[in-house]
Amino acid sequence: MKPLLDLSVYLVLGPQDCPGQDPVDIATAAATSGASVIQLRDKRGTTREQVQLAQRLMTALEPLNVPLIVNDRIDVALAVNADGVHVGQEDMDASKVRELIGPDKLLGLSVSTQSELDAADLEACDYLGIGACFPTISKDDAAQVGMQNFRHLTEQATLPVVGIGGISLANAAQVISAGADGVAVISAICGAPDVSAATKELSSIVAARKDLG
Amino acid sequence: MKPLLDLSVYLVLGPQDCPGQDPVDIATAAATSGASVIQLRDKRGTTREQVQLAQRLMTALEPLNVPLIVNDRIDVALAVNADGVHVGQEDMDASKVRELIGPDKLLGLSVSTQSELDAADLEACDYLGIGACFPTISKDDAAQVGMQNFRHLTEQATLPVVGIGGISLANAAQVISAGADGVAVISAICGAPDVSAATKELSSIVAARKDLG
Repeated sequence: MKPLLDLSVYLVLGPQDCPGQDPVDIATAAATSGASVIQLRDKRGTTREQVQLAQRLMTALEPLNVPLIVNDRIDVALAVNADGVHVGQEDMDASKVRELIGPDKLLGLSVSTQSELDAADLEACDYLGIGACFPTISKDDAAQVGMQNFRHLTEQATLPVVGIGGISLANAAQVISAGADGVAVISAICGAPDVSAATKELSSIVAARKDLG
Repeated sequence: MKPLLDLSVYLVLGPQDCPGQDPVDIATAAATSGASVIQLRDKRGTTREQVQLAQRLMTALEPLNVPLIVNDRIDVALAVNADGVHVGQEDMDASKVRELIGPDKLLGLSVSTQSELDAADLEACDYLGIGACFPTISKDDAAQVGMQNFRHLTEQATLPVVGIGGISLANAAQVISAGADGVAVISAICGAPDVSAATKELSSIVAARKDLG
């Protein structure tokens, strides 16, 4: 059965985001402090390294009931029986991914323009990532959509939406107000001096703004 | 059912090996001139690009009855229903790969030392790639095993062996004489002024030396 999907605080991370630290420690601290989804996004490690890290994340997150989503690498996700996969426009077609992962895994798709949304195979997907919401340095290929456009895309989406790109404690509320079900962050948590405190604060901001909506 | 495996002339290629040319053209010319296996090895393309190239190779090679093996990326292989996968020591464990690809696909594993051979899950595999036989510039992480050691490893292998690494028209016969069932090449074919002629010549050298054995 598909895991329940709570997009509220969606942490994206890989070794590149945690210099000098173990991504599993950061993911575990976040998952025990309110992060509702963890995505492994490793564009540099060998397949062996990615599988090993994904396996360690699964072992850490399973008892916490926080799903692990693997970015792009369906093979890595299948190898560790991860809870799902997230693909972008440079990755495999969502419909093909669904074929490979079967009906019981989560599938997210990133879109950043109207034409990408129009072309998306939404039936194959469980949620959309829309962004970049704000300027970001963590993902250098992400074009900023702007909040007005973000709201417009989110309104049309027939699936849950997580905002992504440049989201911080300072602007997370705007993303939820614009219609998102959650916020995806990298550096707002990985780069925080206190991962647990930053996650808790982000979680409160999202919950408070959702209550308003 | 598993495709028949003839390792005689095993061409490894990706966009990085064919500057200014279409890898599908080179693979097709080679496959019609005696290449018995084509391996797609693309360490740089996005997943989308790799799937597209793999699909084009499948379309070209299927009518020629030449199997397509995908290096490392099990997801790409599954997406296009390729004939098999080849993994190295930095890739996924062979036993896990076998779980993901099922019993009907080919699986090759690269080994270059006695300890790698001892640790290999040979039951999961259909063949071994052993090398680097000679100095090579195409694959910068390949340690040279030397021909004496190559022969020693090949003698112990209970699976068909393809020699790999720095193999050319000038030294291919040595590799077969040392016990290999075939030769894997990159630049001996991709870098040849006439791909068909080079493939035919390599094919004759291998066949002639096999007849002697």
